[in-house]
Amino acid sequence: MASKSWVQKLTPAAPHGSELLKQERAKSNIDANQLAQFLFTKEALERNERILKLLTADPVFDKSHNYFQGREARIEASLAKAKRLRQLQVQHNWTQDEFMCANELLSEATPYGLHYSMFLVTLREQGTPEQHKLFLEKAENYEIIGCYAQTELGHGSNVRGLETTATWNAADKTFIIHSPHLTSSKWWIGSLGIVATHAVVMAQLSVNGKNYGPHPFVVPVRDMITHEPLPNVHVGDVGPKFGFNTMDNGYLLLNKVKIPHVNMLARFSRIDPETSKYTRPANPSLIYGTLTFVRADIVLKSGSVLARGVTIATRYCAVRRQFQDQDAEASQAGENQVLNYTMVQYRLLPLLATTFALHFTGRGMIRMYQENQKRMSASRDASKSEDTKRHPGPEELNPGTDLLADLHATSCALKAYGSTMAAEGLEVCRRACGGHGYSSFSGIGSYYADYLPTVTWEGDNYMLTQQVARYLLKSARAVLAGKAAANDTTRILKAFLARQDMGAAFDVLGSDTDLVDAFAWRVAFLTFEALRHRDEEKQSWNSLLVDFWRLSTAHAQYMVVKSFHDALSEPATQESLPQDTITILYQLFRLFALHTLEQEASEFFMSAATTVRQIQLARKASMKLLEEIRPHAVRLVDAWSFPDWQLDSSLGRSDGKVYEDMFHRASSLNALNKVIVDPYPNSRVLFKKDGRTSKL
Amino acid sequence: MASKSWVQKLTPAAPHGSELLKQERAKSNIDANQLAQFLFTKEALERNERILKLLTADPVFDKSHNYFQGREARIEASLAKAKRLRQLQVQHNWTQDEFMCANELLSEATPYGLHYSMFLVTLREQGTPEQHKLFLEKAENYEIIGCYAQTELGHGSNVRGLETTATWNAADKTFIIHSPHLTSSKWWIGSLGIVATHAVVMAQLSVNGKNYGPHPFVVPVRDMITHEPLPNVHVGDVGPKFGFNTMDNGYLLLNKVKIPHVNMLARFSRIDPETSKYTRPANPSLIYGTLTFVRADIVLKSGSVLARGVTIATRYCAVRRQFQDQDAEASQAGENQVLNYTMVQYRLLPLLATTFALHFTGRGMIRMYQENQKRMSASRDASKSEDTKRHPGPEELNPGTDLLADLHATSCALKAYGSTMAAEGLEVCRRACGGHGYSSFSGIGSYYADYLPTVTWEGDNYMLTQQVARYLLKSARAVLAGKAAANDTTRILKAFLARQDMGAAFDVLGSDTDLVDAFAWRVAFLTFEALRHRDEEKQSWNSLLVDFWRLSTAHAQYMVVKSFHDALSEPATQESLPQDTITILYQLFRLFALHTLEQEASEFFMSAATTVRQIQLARKASMKLLEEIRPHAVRLVDAWSFPDWQLDSSLGRSDGKVYEDMFHRASSLNALNKVIVDPYPNSRVLFKKDGRTSKL
Repeated sequence: MASKSWVQKLTPAAPHGSELLKQERAKSNIDANQLAQFLFTKEALERNERILKLLTADPVFDKSHNYFQGREARIEASLAKAKRLRQLQVQHNWTQDEFMCANELLSEATPYGLHYSMFLVTLREQGTPEQHKLFLEKAENYEIIGCYAQTELGHGSNVRGLETTATWNAADKTFIIHSPHLTSSKWWIGSLGIVATHAVVMAQLSVNGKNYGPHPFVVPVRDMITHEPLPNVHVGDVGPKFGFNTMDNGYLLLNKVKIPHVNMLARFSRIDPETSKYTRPANPSLIYGTLTFVRADIVLKSGSVLARGVTIATRYCAVRRQFQDQDAEASQAGENQVLNYTMVQYRLLPLLATTFALHFTGRGMIRMYQENQKRMSASRDASKSEDTKRHPGPEELNPGTDLLADLHATSCALKAYGSTMAAEGLEVCRRACGGHGYSSFSGIGSYYADYLPTVTWEGDNYMLTQQVARYLLKSARAVLAGKAAANDTTRILKAFLARQDMGAAFDVLGSDTDLVDAFAWRVAFLTFEALRHRDEEKQSWNSLLVDFWRLSTAHAQYMVVKSFHDALSEPATQESLPQDTITILYQLFRLFALHTLEQEASEFFMSAATTVRQIQLARKASMKLLEEIRPHAVRLVDAWSFPDWQLDSSLGRSDGKVYEDMFHRASSLNALNKVIVDPYPNSRVLFKKDGRTSKL
Repeated sequence: MASKSWVQKLTPAAPHGSELLKQERAKSNIDANQLAQFLFTKEALERNERILKLLTADPVFDKSHNYFQGREARIEASLAKAKRLRQLQVQHNWTQDEFMCANELLSEATPYGLHYSMFLVTLREQGTPEQHKLFLEKAENYEIIGCYAQTELGHGSNVRGLETTATWNAADKTFIIHSPHLTSSKWWIGSLGIVATHAVVMAQLSVNGKNYGPHPFVVPVRDMITHEPLPNVHVGDVGPKFGFNTMDNGYLLLNKVKIPHVNMLARFSRIDPETSKYTRPANPSLIYGTLTFVRADIVLKSGSVLARGVTIATRYCAVRRQFQDQDAEASQAGENQVLNYTMVQYRLLPLLATTFALHFTGRGMIRMYQENQKRMSASRDASKSEDTKRHPGPEELNPGTDLLADLHATSCALKAYGSTMAAEGLEVCRRACGGHGYSSFSGIGSYYADYLPTVTWEGDNYMLTQQVARYLLKSARAVLAGKAAANDTTRILKAFLARQDMGAAFDVLGSDTDLVDAFAWRVAFLTFEALRHRDEEKQSWNSLLVDFWRLSTAHAQYMVVKSFHDALSEPATQESLPQDTITILYQLFRLFALHTLEQEASEFFMSAATTVRQIQLARKASMKLLEEIRPHAVRLVDAWSFPDWQLDSSLGRSDGKVYEDMFHRASSLNALNKVIVDPYPNSRVLFKKDGRTSKL
């Protein structure tokens, strides 16, 4: 509906959002650019800017209809974007970092999403040189488009329970891939729904009647020319989802489909085609390292995921005014900025602190991962082939290596904690925007919905906590037996044992290192409690799952608190940032730690890490920190450096033109407003549009 | 895509979901029908069944495309449903209860939603007999379709801050309704986006330059024949939302629109057209009672809202099997039902308990409301007109009446708590379904998204807690001054004072009434703490908002625990249900109370309502209760009596045919699977469908 002239003349009531954000930025002495460079490096920021220019110049990447489109239109548009991104990648000879940066700015999963990640990675890591020639090269050139088909309709996390079978047929040297039941249908497989021509199918390998467990097979699923499903293949899209609707998650049923011997990815396990002899992998935990890297990356991202919501909500709560302060003098006319209310600060600012906490934690994890890779590669056979550059091959991995085991447990605990915090925090941010948070134009709801699978994939967040607990119990047993390796986990367990008869006396409000130590104490206490339940009281594993989940969460919180503190204490930090900024970062550290301590109060006093009085004082100290951080809130979110185009949010606009943008989108972009409706119940007419009349 | 014959022959791997649910039902001796009748009455259940038959027989109400449709198609279909519901209402002469029951079964907001609720209610309650003739009668016959336009783009909760003006013009006895700024655009107005012909507009009444605050005006917005916006009216739909997309929330800007004197709803406040004299309402809190009723209804509904998610998740977790029990003997083949894992029980069963807790609490509130209405109507002038039958008019209300003030505070606290529990609980249920919870076919995601506005409307859940705190502080001051009225709130405050020098000794694990009393003690403790901060330490209102929110939550939890316990202890309950069922209900009561106590542990020990040891034991007792309730879980959700048609969920099917249904919907109903895709990045072709080819 074209706006009338009197509508076009309207402006928001004063003070305008743009003015309010200006005032906010004037109130703080933080240099957001400097902080941004410290967080991301100057190079990364420049790269983002360069790629942003390319994307915004191309109408294919126009976002203005995203919130209005239905599923089919969205996935069609997303395929177009995916194709163009690939074209740009070739045209500009983008590095992997540049390509991923473009995807981040686009901020939607595309139908190529699983092709360029899991499909390529699996072929690369698990294929032989012959298979690289046959499949990987074509896949890298997008001559075949693939996906990774593991999960089944009836089987998620439990890979060993998969039903799909791959039966070796020595007579003609083929495998028969078969889906025996409806529940064996592959399900949720990204990029399979409409685009994949090939799938890496995980299937139970059966040789001469013996089951060797799940193995990967390359299975063609659609005709390379017509793109129709191949004979005996039933493949399609699994339908609409809560979010992620630009991705074609698919299903796949195979009716005794025959594939040649070479289609079993054979770098680690193989069948000798002549003797039918099966060769076992030297080490069954083949992708230990890859999974650890993927999880470390989820942790790092969880900070920026949450930061998007916090950026939007913080800016909008600085623009939005509602009610007067209850104690304000009658003379103080005008409504109060919502961000001035302590109830809003209490919801938002600890999340602001969490964004930095998770960022530093993720960065620390990636660094630990890289150090470990380096250490292992130093001791590696020099004759190693070059194809494992980006991800570690099995020979580089020795799960017995304590550092790797520690890193793996850490990655499990932090993946579960970080992604849960990010997902739940986004929803808190959305609600902190009040009614307008519910509009798609807030930009938070759809992003939240798209992010949610992260709490389930790469290890369900609850399932993962069992692995963390198992590792901590094992470490505790080693410490008690005097056989523990030297790492941070055994250090905190030993420190606890050394003082358990003296008790703790952590000065959590007076000393930052004591604050970190109190979190360590709680982890050690819960570990030995769990150990007592399991080893002495012989309680069943199942009966302890809730304890294990609590333990894993406590472990994650300790590591986040420690990583945040370590990052701030590094000389590099002290040299890169002015003292004022460092002071605010320390306040954010304290807010994160004390807020968490308060949320988990009962475990802190039960473990005697703190007294009850200290918890009461922690509440008070948190409220004081909110007040201190409040003036810097807008500049702190500015440091996250999200371009408006990336956020695609009316509420989170960096210029504060919230209401103008909301109104423009509703009034000018909304196709529903072109419909003429017959509203009366006794008329059968519903909609009239473009000459079409629909009827009841 | 038509399934091939080999696909059609596939069944899920054994044991089938239908078999597993049968076993579940066989394990429990609860008579779900009997419990259902106790919860809802036999009449209500029969009514549901009768209306369900009507709806499912009519293709207009077909739900099979709901999850696939885009916004425009959905709202078009929803308008069709709304029209047909209205036709059925007339045809079958439905009572209001029957009409609302049909809407519940349909489970989607329709574009008539605000017409038949707020528009009719406002006209009825705030209109004079003349205005009833002029507007209400036509509205009741759907000759005009209306909405209630209060919220503005720049103003939500703070009604006094509204910008829209209504200026009295004595010369021609009219009002000029005007939107001075962009931020004064009415926004979020349900039923306004595409259907309303009229709006009740809340605008600042200005007479001779003096502002009398917000008042309601009936404003025609669209032509009665062409349905085009009237001159100087800018009206439309606000665009897509996180949920609720079958409703046409609208915006409205008015450019000096003139309306006659009679269009100001004048039952309470009016302008004398001859003298321009303004008559003030006798009592400014006109809709105190109505709001209380609306909130009581939200509390009652929050139980059933949550029960939908719990029903779906519980059934699916009984059908879904994943991993073997860690401690199982190798001989015990087969995977374990997910519902057997304590981590799943810990997430789901306290929510199951919450559904009953909220149901009984809501029922208790409605009863208290009705008793209060009766009491007030007994003392009411017999000459009262009949038009206030359904909602109390202002003369019936005396905010000084202690019971009403108590009821009002209670309704605020419970609305905030109940709707938060329901919204967040639904998301917990969705995640407890694992990966498949993310599919639209789970039926939880869209329902959650549709429910979310409830945490914001009828009083934002955080804002409301200030009203509760204000009431509790006032009560505490009255108690200290020895001037308190006799009600439950003052009773618990007095009980606390009487024992504050002796301390509490609640046997929370041994006695159910002590458990209730411990919750009361915590409320009283927090009330006097807040009072000290405010009255003695003179802390600012703003600095106490977080304390007030905690206090209100504590108050709500106490009332829920008390209501649940009271409901079970009633003779009617003891007479209606067999002892086995009552035993399980008491276990659910204890689980709810102990789980809440554990979650809020720090307030219980800080107030010395319990010892630290008791909290540890409460954890243990909760785990034991999970085990005891587990075998009855499926029958307990069966008692909620949701027809499959209402849930519209593959995962929550009462017959357990989860995988068959998921597969059917994805494979046969999914229009995306009719598209032929060109997947290669160098081809400009995207989709081919119905002879159309789309290109990049």
